[in-house]
Amino acid sequence: MRQSQLFTKTSKQTPKDEVSTNAQLLIKAGFIHKELAGAYSYLPLGLRVLNKINNIIREEMNIIGGQEIFLTSLQNPELWKRTDRWSDEIVDNWFKTRLKNDTELGLAFTHEEPLANLMKNHINSYKDLPCYPYQIQTKFRNELRSKSGIMRCREFLMKDLYSFSRTQEEHDNFYESTKPAYLKIFERCGLGDKTFITFASGGVFSKYSHEFQTLTESGEDIIYLDREKKIAVNKEVYTDEILASLELNKDNLEEVKAVEVGNIFTLGTKYSEPLGLNYNDKDSKQQTVIMGSYGIGPGRVMGTIAEVHNDENGLIWPEEVAPFDIHLVSLCKEESDVKKADELYTKLTSEGKDVLYDDRNTSAGAKFADSDLIGIPVRYVISPKTLEQGSVEVKKRDQEESELVKL
Amino acid sequence: MRQSQLFTKTSKQTPKDEVSTNAQLLIKAGFIHKELAGAYSYLPLGLRVLNKINNIIREEMNIIGGQEIFLTSLQNPELWKRTDRWSDEIVDNWFKTRLKNDTELGLAFTHEEPLANLMKNHINSYKDLPCYPYQIQTKFRNELRSKSGIMRCREFLMKDLYSFSRTQEEHDNFYESTKPAYLKIFERCGLGDKTFITFASGGVFSKYSHEFQTLTESGEDIIYLDREKKIAVNKEVYTDEILASLELNKDNLEEVKAVEVGNIFTLGTKYSEPLGLNYNDKDSKQQTVIMGSYGIGPGRVMGTIAEVHNDENGLIWPEEVAPFDIHLVSLCKEESDVKKADELYTKLTSEGKDVLYDDRNTSAGAKFADSDLIGIPVRYVISPKTLEQGSVEVKKRDQEESELVKL
Repeated sequence: MRQSQLFTKTSKQTPKDEVSTNAQLLIKAGFIHKELAGAYSYLPLGLRVLNKINNIIREEMNIIGGQEIFLTSLQNPELWKRTDRWSDEIVDNWFKTRLKNDTELGLAFTHEEPLANLMKNHINSYKDLPCYPYQIQTKFRNELRSKSGIMRCREFLMKDLYSFSRTQEEHDNFYESTKPAYLKIFERCGLGDKTFITFASGGVFSKYSHEFQTLTESGEDIIYLDREKKIAVNKEVYTDEILASLELNKDNLEEVKAVEVGNIFTLGTKYSEPLGLNYNDKDSKQQTVIMGSYGIGPGRVMGTIAEVHNDENGLIWPEEVAPFDIHLVSLCKEESDVKKADELYTKLTSEGKDVLYDDRNTSAGAKFADSDLIGIPVRYVISPKTLEQGSVEVKKRDQEESELVKL
Repeated sequence: MRQSQLFTKTSKQTPKDEVSTNAQLLIKAGFIHKELAGAYSYLPLGLRVLNKINNIIREEMNIIGGQEIFLTSLQNPELWKRTDRWSDEIVDNWFKTRLKNDTELGLAFTHEEPLANLMKNHINSYKDLPCYPYQIQTKFRNELRSKSGIMRCREFLMKDLYSFSRTQEEHDNFYESTKPAYLKIFERCGLGDKTFITFASGGVFSKYSHEFQTLTESGEDIIYLDREKKIAVNKEVYTDEILASLELNKDNLEEVKAVEVGNIFTLGTKYSEPLGLNYNDKDSKQQTVIMGSYGIGPGRVMGTIAEVHNDENGLIWPEEVAPFDIHLVSLCKEESDVKKADELYTKLTSEGKDVLYDDRNTSAGAKFADSDLIGIPVRYVISPKTLEQGSVEVKKRDQEESELVKL
């Protein structure tokens, strides 16, 4: 796309009401806009990154058998009363609203209840199981505070997959299969080196759950990490008993700050039982479906990438999630030179590259500053000087050196 | 995809709480699930259709210069008070909610205010205009009644594009360019023959707006249609004066029921003025930005397609929006035959066709009934009988005749 057409502008000022690096950088670079604390709109560059993350997640979820759906935000209290999650005293982050006739409704902060109820229409026999529906959909959470930019929002996208299994063994097998799928997602998002499977507290039906924690000073969690074994333990379950069960030695553990970019939970029959989600086994005996839930916040992943990949000049997007593959910066003014820049843009685009083409009538300094701030991984500079040598200057955003490449 | 893996099941029973054809058929065929009156979840088949409609809309909006964004649902009352649209007495379909500190928030029923406000960060000079951001995002509308299935919901997806122009002429040119773009969208969605540009009442800044009305008995609107001129007038503005201005003759008009699948509005400075969205013209004189808004409800389009394209056996999807291109129904039981069916599935898939492969161990009758209900436009039947002739039987969903085609 031609940058002269892109309606968003970068800003030199750091927004005064933001303390997080991710929000400061993403707002300055024109990726997001703060609507209110904990609610951000995505502008064209930001939406491109978000969609790339979403599509990576989709691909990896489809590989392990996920089927995409899209549930409603508006929620019927009746379902949530059955699992005792309607009361504000038990779930403290509901947003609630009312119909014209004064019926109270909720805005989904998660979707176990409506999905377990929905699945009653599609699960009768053991032949209908297992299955793994997932969605990428907005969640609403009435957080008391929200100052971590897009890493902890009151309104945010969530990928939530739910597993419906016949037996504990079938559940455990699927649960284990999500771990490499999750690690693959974070690796593709450029967070592979810094993301670790972390033991965390479970719920009623499981001693532990697992989190995927990415190391960053801006993280709200504290974890104890064994770098060699690539395993961590969340502070909330950091006990001698648990370290022993994981065969971890305190001396090898580092206390580090991290952000939870994903989590996987064994739910057992916690929701399926009160909602009556059963199946008939081979002997026509009624059994309760075993559930699990598996979350990733694509916006939080985007925020974490911004926290981890930046320098004093701006963002540095990993290849697979960058808003564009190439930032083509033209310093050409003469008609014949501009024509060559246009041709290069057309050529790269026709080769299937996503190119942001800075064709604006502005100074070289402003163009380079914007290019660094926006953080597209590869920059091509085409100018009268490079054209003299029939070349374009190619530089990676995360490297100092550039090289001249023949056109 | 193999149908044995698809977790949704069709149902023989017509849902008792649905009066609309679209909801009855889409629920029976397993495309959608009713969460509450006016709020439907999309299951895998339904989401595939919805995404195809969304992508058609995206393509056509991008062609006329649209840039996709994604705004928040949670809304700050301050912006809406400035345009006098916060009060429930003026806007009667708000859903409202509250933060923990009791601050009232709204759930967006449209997005003129937040977007006009956002654009103040990106529009300063005449050089920054025109621009055309759009989104495909959830809207919440607190409708008193909701019984038209996915054609009138309390929570629904909307494509809303907003134009920001310098002059009335620039606005008018863009406004006119959206008409063929919209007609193209409805044509690609299989509604071309039945969809007509319709004069409707405007707002403060325009005498008229335009609706895109699709003829169907289930429509809530009454329009007067000149079939020859392909122009209609909504009942609400059906006056002699308007007929005269459009050079329409009462004798040539038909009174018909229709559903509004899209609309385009001239907003003038109705929102930009109170929100202070200005630009400096070439003479550095401050001017107010001229706005327009352009809506299409993808869910309503999907519901309208279901209303228009069906028969007594089920849905009949137009090609471009069908959940799959081909429904491959296998009646093979012998291992060697099953292998040939599998090979055909692989071959079609590798040719880039989206295939739903009915590999289930169930009766031919049940398979044909499901196939008709789901309504994929082309059905391939592979059976011992067709294999005897080295063939597969090909039948279009909307035709009676089938033909044998060599494998």
